[in-house]
Amino acid sequence: MSVAAELGKITLSTDAETPVDTLFALVAGDMQAVDALIHARMSSAVSLIPELSRHLIDSGGKRLRPMLTLAAAHICDYVGSHHLNLAAAVEFIHTATLLHDDVVDASALRRGKVAANVVWGNKPSILVGDFLFSRAFELMVETGDLSVLGILARASSVIAEGEVMQLRSANNLGTTEADYLAVVTAKTAALFAASAEAGGALADAPLTIVGALRDYGLNLGIAFQLTDDTLDYLGGEQQMGKAVGDDFREAKVTLPVILALQRASEPQRRFWQRVIEAGEQSDRDLDTAIQIVRETGAIGESQARARAYADSAITAASRLPSQEMTTALIDIAEFCVARAF
Amino acid sequence: MSVAAELGKITLSTDAETPVDTLFALVAGDMQAVDALIHARMSSAVSLIPELSRHLIDSGGKRLRPMLTLAAAHICDYVGSHHLNLAAAVEFIHTATLLHDDVVDASALRRGKVAANVVWGNKPSILVGDFLFSRAFELMVETGDLSVLGILARASSVIAEGEVMQLRSANNLGTTEADYLAVVTAKTAALFAASAEAGGALADAPLTIVGALRDYGLNLGIAFQLTDDTLDYLGGEQQMGKAVGDDFREAKVTLPVILALQRASEPQRRFWQRVIEAGEQSDRDLDTAIQIVRETGAIGESQARARAYADSAITAASRLPSQEMTTALIDIAEFCVARAF
Repeated sequence: MSVAAELGKITLSTDAETPVDTLFALVAGDMQAVDALIHARMSSAVSLIPELSRHLIDSGGKRLRPMLTLAAAHICDYVGSHHLNLAAAVEFIHTATLLHDDVVDASALRRGKVAANVVWGNKPSILVGDFLFSRAFELMVETGDLSVLGILARASSVIAEGEVMQLRSANNLGTTEADYLAVVTAKTAALFAASAEAGGALADAPLTIVGALRDYGLNLGIAFQLTDDTLDYLGGEQQMGKAVGDDFREAKVTLPVILALQRASEPQRRFWQRVIEAGEQSDRDLDTAIQIVRETGAIGESQARARAYADSAITAASRLPSQEMTTALIDIAEFCVARAF
Repeated sequence: MSVAAELGKITLSTDAETPVDTLFALVAGDMQAVDALIHARMSSAVSLIPELSRHLIDSGGKRLRPMLTLAAAHICDYVGSHHLNLAAAVEFIHTATLLHDDVVDASALRRGKVAANVVWGNKPSILVGDFLFSRAFELMVETGDLSVLGILARASSVIAEGEVMQLRSANNLGTTEADYLAVVTAKTAALFAASAEAGGALADAPLTIVGALRDYGLNLGIAFQLTDDTLDYLGGEQQMGKAVGDDFREAKVTLPVILALQRASEPQRRFWQRVIEAGEQSDRDLDTAIQIVRETGAIGESQARARAYADSAITAASRLPSQEMTTALIDIAEFCVARAF
């Protein structure tokens, strides 16, 4: 799901305007054009392709990644219309990875809707993902800019590497913090980084600015994923669209688990071996897990790590030309982790 | 599987040098460099990626698609080394589609070996396919040539469209000859066409030459697939690596079936409905099917169609500069259908 949607659904008050909404307002005209382009380019004489694509693309993701691309291009004073192609391409790459992810994870839900693999089966999800991925490259070719093609092609292979790495850490308590960070960086942060970087590269911005955009996206992506993984064990008053304990029930080895394991007593270690490694869980285990990650300080430490990445994102953004959109990027990084406190 | 392997395995005499071998000898130096590049670029710190890639890439495909790219570049007097990148990219795209194909078809075998999806499971096959596909675009970015990127990106989305189309025709006797040809053109011929066309485009050849290369590849690809689908019902003395009746047992609606159905008596129509639509087959049904496609003339007609596409490929090749490699291309088109007679 797009981070915007993910951020949106955990807004503490549903009426509050988030920094994501603020950025959206600043690029609203462009986003309308991107939306039109996305719908035009997911069309195909093979009707199942737009049908399945629409199911996911129109499911309420707020498209933070293409917004990063547009904001980056504007901050770098880009003149032209190719940033629209680039933003649509970024969303297509993201959508393609979600389709393949849901097949790999056998997901039942995506963005609160029945996942495409459940509605149409795995085969069309794999193939429509391939289609959208190819269309992303067609859109980028139209920008006439080889540097953005290089940035997104590289990010795409890194994402795939991250996904393969992640397979190895399923049910695997031997997963180290370094393994976890490598997966998060590749699987989630690489596309955030590329989305922002490519917007600056398209505008032919100086390398220092393009580098700052990349650093911003990379650190924002890591901060976002760490926060998301932490929230899975928080719950309580913070009502989220995503149910507390989803990762736990899927026996995912996320940062709270890794840190709790480092601090585990012998009975706690046996607990994690049973619920994560063996995947044997009963009704009360989630409560126990939440209690352990809190008492061992694993949650506090996870939040602190996320905070540090958000701070790095803010530092990177402060190297960008000062303007309204840059302020929105800084506020988004702040908002991204604030939700976990 | 690469066409070379497919062609190779059905050589009537195993000692005979085929036109594919002749072309290979003409580009042997380049192919060695392409092979090195392929192995260098499928490397990853995530060891499962090169492991799984190697399983398929080193399984004896003779790589006709990258050979077409190299031959096209040479015929157009290309000077430089980027044709090697392009040829490696073409093979990566082909390998990625095979990996996804085998997941979609739940294939047990590929190139006579246990398929990757069986050895490692569907998840790594999907994700390593994505990785190789992304690497293909990275390789193409290095050519610095947007036109070849456009040609291959377009071909990739057409291939995905063809694969989705094909899902609809499974067990579906309503599949028309036009449907079948659309699938074959998109799924098989588009990459042959793009492989040849891109080699010419990289060399900045005149549009008429690039067009001839494209026409050659497209028609060769269709001729090849039609022949392959016909051979599935031939058998007899012509011993092939692929077992006779594979398509039949998978209830695929290929050209021989479509043509036989057009000519079917009422009992024959019921036969096809049972074995293809309902998928209910017993031991003697393959023999009956072979008898029907022969007696109705469906096989002869399928062969004639394949022959016509091969002739179109030869006509297209005759518009190319006359040289040894062009002769090899013509001989390959000839060989491609000759195996079915």
